[in-house]
Amino acid sequence: MKAFQEIVYSNRKNHENIHEKIIANHQQIEGWFRNQWLKYPAPFYSSIDIRNSGFKISPIDTNLFPAGFNNLNSDFQSLYVTAVKHSLDTLKTKINKILIIPEDHTRNEHYLDSLGYLSRLIEKAGYEVKVSKPSITDNSKFKNINSLLEYDGFIPDAILLNNDLSAGVPSFLDNVKQVILPSKNIGWTKRSKTDHFNYYSDVCSNFSNLLGIDSWMIDPEFRNCGEINFKTKQGEDCLVYNAEKLFNIISEKYEKYDIDEKPFIIIKADSGTYGMGVISIDSIDQIKNLNRKQRNKMLSTKGNVLLNKVILQEGVYSFEETKESCNVAEPVIYSFSNFLIGGFYRTHENKANNENLNSPGMIFQPIPLNDICISPDLSLDIDSQINKYYVYGVVARLAILAAAKELFNLD
Amino acid sequence: MKAFQEIVYSNRKNHENIHEKIIANHQQIEGWFRNQWLKYPAPFYSSIDIRNSGFKISPIDTNLFPAGFNNLNSDFQSLYVTAVKHSLDTLKTKINKILIIPEDHTRNEHYLDSLGYLSRLIEKAGYEVKVSKPSITDNSKFKNINSLLEYDGFIPDAILLNNDLSAGVPSFLDNVKQVILPSKNIGWTKRSKTDHFNYYSDVCSNFSNLLGIDSWMIDPEFRNCGEINFKTKQGEDCLVYNAEKLFNIISEKYEKYDIDEKPFIIIKADSGTYGMGVISIDSIDQIKNLNRKQRNKMLSTKGNVLLNKVILQEGVYSFEETKESCNVAEPVIYSFSNFLIGGFYRTHENKANNENLNSPGMIFQPIPLNDICISPDLSLDIDSQINKYYVYGVVARLAILAAAKELFNLD
Repeated sequence: MKAFQEIVYSNRKNHENIHEKIIANHQQIEGWFRNQWLKYPAPFYSSIDIRNSGFKISPIDTNLFPAGFNNLNSDFQSLYVTAVKHSLDTLKTKINKILIIPEDHTRNEHYLDSLGYLSRLIEKAGYEVKVSKPSITDNSKFKNINSLLEYDGFIPDAILLNNDLSAGVPSFLDNVKQVILPSKNIGWTKRSKTDHFNYYSDVCSNFSNLLGIDSWMIDPEFRNCGEINFKTKQGEDCLVYNAEKLFNIISEKYEKYDIDEKPFIIIKADSGTYGMGVISIDSIDQIKNLNRKQRNKMLSTKGNVLLNKVILQEGVYSFEETKESCNVAEPVIYSFSNFLIGGFYRTHENKANNENLNSPGMIFQPIPLNDICISPDLSLDIDSQINKYYVYGVVARLAILAAAKELFNLD
Repeated sequence: MKAFQEIVYSNRKNHENIHEKIIANHQQIEGWFRNQWLKYPAPFYSSIDIRNSGFKISPIDTNLFPAGFNNLNSDFQSLYVTAVKHSLDTLKTKINKILIIPEDHTRNEHYLDSLGYLSRLIEKAGYEVKVSKPSITDNSKFKNINSLLEYDGFIPDAILLNNDLSAGVPSFLDNVKQVILPSKNIGWTKRSKTDHFNYYSDVCSNFSNLLGIDSWMIDPEFRNCGEINFKTKQGEDCLVYNAEKLFNIISEKYEKYDIDEKPFIIIKADSGTYGMGVISIDSIDQIKNLNRKQRNKMLSTKGNVLLNKVILQEGVYSFEETKESCNVAEPVIYSFSNFLIGGFYRTHENKANNENLNSPGMIFQPIPLNDICISPDLSLDIDSQINKYYVYGVVARLAILAAAKELFNLD
């Protein structure tokens, strides 16, 4: 059994409102979600990065090709296996063999651990699993025979992508009869964060009506710019213009809710980046004065694609930290379809509460037994771990629902 | 965290065959089950009593209105809640409110604990739950308005029976539009153990073909008699005749597999009895010489219905016991739909390994973390707890599948 480090609020602000509303209305919320899933089936799996500033709780990244499974609390393996079974059961299709198409970083040990754990979970759910190697950049082992994808002699019933398709949809996935999970249309080539957060805003607006809250409390403001070239500074005017607009909106909200903090904005690639190319600014001048290191950071995104579209997103403070070492922490919640399976805290000793924690040096802190997002405990304080996790579970599912709507319209 | 008492073999016989076959073919088995569930959806919930003599592993009772939820390992609550969600999700119907119709033993504290825990699990899954009280014998609070059942002002979307309907199907369940779980047709008024074990034999025959084993290794032989009156001894000839036949079959099998044990037979009501009215015999003479106490036992079944039909079933030794106190033990496995959620061992300090353990004085021993029936661990010994539980999970699902087929044909 692991020892768990307690995560506490570093700066406890007027968060009662949103927490309380969610806890008090949990039954209504569960009913609402159920109806949503009937219309919009959740994608096969996901991991959701969440930030909690007390006055605001938002997903900041919705990953539909999650890694990091190795960081989950292994005591809960039977729950994960059950959730995998559910996710595959709901397809109501005869599936026995599954081919996993992974990312290309074959030398990243953490990723390989995650991939190994994911494979074992699916195997334990009773499926035959094969992982393609060396993945999509080497297509020689993939064959398409009568619209059935075959890999190295293995003909799967379903293909599971654990590759975000940043490098494009490989041609061997064209004209394939087998079910492709979550979908070949939801990779970063076709998807953008702007699209996702548009769907998310829509979901939040419905959800907020249900609860009678200001949707800003769960929905980060954002703006997007067209083509930006950080080398030539082309498009910088647009960045400045949108950043000004954003700062104004955030400041107004901070004033309205009497929040004595400095607004900040996150600038990041509009398509997935693995934590690369993310900068945090708290004034317009910082955009004009981006130094060479920061500009280079925005150029070096995954697969060396020249970053061209960026999203400016309202920064959400993370006012949670590890109790003893006071390292800033943010929860990451995992799911298989609409079933939450818990997750962990990502912590970082060298980052501030307004910085991206998904970077080298991060440490993962699994969630203890039973505090697993599924239901609140009304007999406990709203700040209790179990109730906080329920709130995270709700926010995570709002993001998953947004992704489900994306998927519904893309497929 | 609980301390778990280890359960060990008291008499380790040539059980390798069936255990090994199941462990080695687990992937094929999982695929086979998946296809079965597509055709025959599992009933809402169940608990399965299993006996393991090493050379034979069989379900001896399949309860479709289970109690004993309070004996489950509460560390796994998130798994149970997830399984409840799955079981209700698969109905693909809009359900928010659930009425539970419980058993009538309102003074049995264990039962009330179980009922309370079951209600909380469903509430934690996000449903509004009401438990009818004082249950079906007092019908005054039930109303049927335009084919919608209403209880004390509560109009549920689904009705969950936690009452085995031994006393008959209450009239207020007639012409009800709401979904009734698992079904009003699967109560003991309409169902018999003979029916169930006929379906079970059929399931075992298919399963055994898949594995290339003698289905006797998982399927207890049985015979049924027509009307028996233990007071007047009417029908005793039939009992003797069938018992002789059964003893012959069992002896032949014991001889074939070189099993140096005394065959025994269980005589019990052909409809559910809560552990009442069960006797164990190991010779024909014992039928003829049933004493008054034993005869009275067969008369005092649940709800004081005069026992008339009995089933004679091959007795299965339980060669498992608690490590320290050497009390005989048998596993009880729980499910929501086709999802196993583990279970516990039922142990008894005053019972022998050929006796019914479901009687006053029994003690429950929860299953430790992770040993939860879902998947085997090929790196461990086949006798390891985790692999033994996987085997129990397979046998439990064979019984659930038999019940699913019953339901399929009854509804």
